[in-house]
Amino acid sequence: MHHDEHLRHDRIRLPLLRQRITSAEEAAAWIHDGMTVGMSGFTRAGDAKAVPLALADRARREPLKITLMTGASLGSDIDKTLTEAGALARRMPFQADPALRAAINRGEVMFVDQHLSETVELLRTRQIAPVDVAVIEAVAITETGAIIPTTSVGNSASFAILADKVIVEINLSQSPALEGLHDIFIPKHRPQREPMPLMNVHDRIGTSAIEIPPEKIVAIVMTEKHDSASTILPPDAETAAIAGHLTDFFVDEIAQGRLTERLMPIQAGIGTIANAVVSGLIDGPFRGLTMYSEVLQDSTFELFDAGKLDFASGSSITLSEAKGRQVFANIERYKDRLVLRPQEVSNHPEVIRRLGIIAINTALEFDIYGNVNSTHVAGTHMMNGIGGSGDFARNAYLSVFATKSVAKGGKISSIVPMVSHVDHNEHDVDIVVTEVGLADLRGLAPRERAQRIIEQCVAEPYRQMLRDYVEEANRGGGQTPHVLEKAFSWHVRYRETGSMLGARAGTTVLRPTQ
Amino acid sequence: MHHDEHLRHDRIRLPLLRQRITSAEEAAAWIHDGMTVGMSGFTRAGDAKAVPLALADRARREPLKITLMTGASLGSDIDKTLTEAGALARRMPFQADPALRAAINRGEVMFVDQHLSETVELLRTRQIAPVDVAVIEAVAITETGAIIPTTSVGNSASFAILADKVIVEINLSQSPALEGLHDIFIPKHRPQREPMPLMNVHDRIGTSAIEIPPEKIVAIVMTEKHDSASTILPPDAETAAIAGHLTDFFVDEIAQGRLTERLMPIQAGIGTIANAVVSGLIDGPFRGLTMYSEVLQDSTFELFDAGKLDFASGSSITLSEAKGRQVFANIERYKDRLVLRPQEVSNHPEVIRRLGIIAINTALEFDIYGNVNSTHVAGTHMMNGIGGSGDFARNAYLSVFATKSVAKGGKISSIVPMVSHVDHNEHDVDIVVTEVGLADLRGLAPRERAQRIIEQCVAEPYRQMLRDYVEEANRGGGQTPHVLEKAFSWHVRYRETGSMLGARAGTTVLRPTQ
Repeated sequence: MHHDEHLRHDRIRLPLLRQRITSAEEAAAWIHDGMTVGMSGFTRAGDAKAVPLALADRARREPLKITLMTGASLGSDIDKTLTEAGALARRMPFQADPALRAAINRGEVMFVDQHLSETVELLRTRQIAPVDVAVIEAVAITETGAIIPTTSVGNSASFAILADKVIVEINLSQSPALEGLHDIFIPKHRPQREPMPLMNVHDRIGTSAIEIPPEKIVAIVMTEKHDSASTILPPDAETAAIAGHLTDFFVDEIAQGRLTERLMPIQAGIGTIANAVVSGLIDGPFRGLTMYSEVLQDSTFELFDAGKLDFASGSSITLSEAKGRQVFANIERYKDRLVLRPQEVSNHPEVIRRLGIIAINTALEFDIYGNVNSTHVAGTHMMNGIGGSGDFARNAYLSVFATKSVAKGGKISSIVPMVSHVDHNEHDVDIVVTEVGLADLRGLAPRERAQRIIEQCVAEPYRQMLRDYVEEANRGGGQTPHVLEKAFSWHVRYRETGSMLGARAGTTVLRPTQ
Repeated sequence: MHHDEHLRHDRIRLPLLRQRITSAEEAAAWIHDGMTVGMSGFTRAGDAKAVPLALADRARREPLKITLMTGASLGSDIDKTLTEAGALARRMPFQADPALRAAINRGEVMFVDQHLSETVELLRTRQIAPVDVAVIEAVAITETGAIIPTTSVGNSASFAILADKVIVEINLSQSPALEGLHDIFIPKHRPQREPMPLMNVHDRIGTSAIEIPPEKIVAIVMTEKHDSASTILPPDAETAAIAGHLTDFFVDEIAQGRLTERLMPIQAGIGTIANAVVSGLIDGPFRGLTMYSEVLQDSTFELFDAGKLDFASGSSITLSEAKGRQVFANIERYKDRLVLRPQEVSNHPEVIRRLGIIAINTALEFDIYGNVNSTHVAGTHMMNGIGGSGDFARNAYLSVFATKSVAKGGKISSIVPMVSHVDHNEHDVDIVVTEVGLADLRGLAPRERAQRIIEQCVAEPYRQMLRDYVEEANRGGGQTPHVLEKAFSWHVRYRETGSMLGARAGTTVLRPTQ
């Protein structure tokens, strides 16, 4: 047998399926204009890489628009290429691509921004259009035709189960050692739904592959392209300060007897700040930590290597290029301390509440009462989507939101009188933290929250500006005092003058000799 | 034995506790300035009625301010009397009293508005100040000293378990036949927490009384006052129209094969509109319905009497005076189809998601994108609180919000460009319905939601005004187009002119001959 043939035998263990190997173009021919397509991929990890690009090629030549569902964001410029080819009519439940984002904000692609735990629940109950074709990246197909996912599970299992037809992309660059990493559990339809039997972060409750009737696999495409590396930035002085404040807080909670040095299972949102905060735990007096999160980033493996982390559960692994090389070449070293689950399980309200998660997510902006905007620039323009932050923040033992206190060199304050869009309201936000400091909002009424946030998290000149706003708002009274005419005045001022400090400040900057 | 003595033997079955019978004043003496007191009571049902009033008496004579926690709102003017006596420093997690509301909005009482499922979770993990004294209304105390609640469970069980001292009010006007109605289940502390073993609306998973060490019961007060009757209004033409639209929607869902004539377990929020909507189901082609709700109102018993309802689970029973007389005199007739649970169980995200609830709640206002304000008048002044609406809306199979399209004779539109306060964001709102019509928002992007809401739910002249707003907002682009300067202009106009239609419209009304 040739090397190629060996590979095929290892990677497609059910012989009859080997006949289904075809080109990306021929596989993409199963997808027609108007269809709903469910693709693998969660935070750039484990996305199908060949068929979507073949589809984009076709869309440049013929009328072809689809509804695209995924786990979360894709890499490999897939969203960009599909957008530029005009192939996307509708997209859910998350994205993070600049070209797609622009098309969404122009109103050209209908983006349905969803809690990541909910998409397959809606599909299962047929409350949204059904998936016609699933396209799933795999390490291999088993002897029974079951699909072994790669670096993410996301919504892949339910897409494959619910779709009429399944296309599998077998990625030869993904390590065969990923087999055994996944735990596929699918809840029953109601009213037969049972409790999710997951009581510890490390519990395995399902199967190691996605089991579907093999005859549903209509095409198999062999690929070799690597996952796109994560785009997070390294920690800086401000993210280090944020991590420091949070570590101090945890140390105090331990002193108060509310936490132990194991803390509680940690979730950290995607991105630079949450990653830096988790990295920062290395320097704290913690041990035996666990993670119950959605995306596992560089910081997870830093914690493993520092001997601080016992176990990590996620739905995907998304690493920087350097960390990816190190981890995937040595995946066997981590494998017994890792599990990847469907995002419905990683983000399930039932499990999050039961385990008592410490949820650490990033805010685009928050307001004096602790309401958080995670998604909309100036209240109108979509950045990425709410992702899993709502699943975790609502049901967490402790819900933390972090951000730098200013952006654009100080011209934007991340703490504003009123957020221009609410993704998480005050009920779901226990702690807010910036490089300035941390505000513990537990058990406080809105007026108290405002005072604590302004004094703990905001630097001048915005601190005094917020004090002035509160003073004026309090004159009107209320549980949550506001001056509605001025609630968004900072956002409007930024749009009109380029700074939330206004024209005068802008002028000062421009004419420093005055 | 005298009649009185007989009564005491029936109602206090553990003999040693009979010595603890005392006056309300003496019982209240256990409560000191600065304490946190947890009292029974949920939506005017099963509140302690004597000790809080004795406490208010004392507060008029000496410095006495407490933190008061309850299940939800109280009756018997307790919140009013305590407020007027200056006895409340802090209040959580819900209230519905005009005098207390005014004090909250003046900033005199710190009101911590919470998801009703979460308060005891915060207490259990000591993230808020512990309960010093619990005051619980009871039908009786058992042979082992366990407390049998009356018409609500609310947070009573956890308050009694977590408090150092417990005062019991035995209310002789509450029917002894209530015994056996309750199902007290308390989740274990983490990390020993297990799945909640509740898989059907009618499952009983706990005990029929609140089990605590009897020595914690420091005082027992005998009372006779009835629960305050509910204040809901009878259905009118508009609530009937809302109910009709929702019934039509359900009938269509059945036709589409997404629901059966049993629908799914129903939750209905407190108040006139939700009650009317549930009553309206009597006229639909449904049978074998079930409820998994928090408060059971008149409509629950109308559905029972109409033969439409198989079982109802709640945390309290709050009825109008006439319905209350009928139901409580015949409680044995309903008892095997009823259960009252701790609000942590009735409102638990885990159970709500598992059962697949149809959640029907009331909006104060909603906006063109389907964000809902349930609590804050003009974005600042507290009405009652978020209550359980967030517990249900977030985790429901289907989340419905209902309101009349206008208030104050048309001077206020309940549908506005942007809600002035967000309790439920678009992710948690599937259906909005007014007397004008119903908008099914499932699977839609914000721009599509706006169009459907405006065309389905709004009457002129507000419909055209919202179309104009959207047209202007769309010019600025975005996933969720807005004109931030004008987002609250309707609220400001109402404050300044007494009508969202503005001065011109106001003038026209005043000078009809022009």
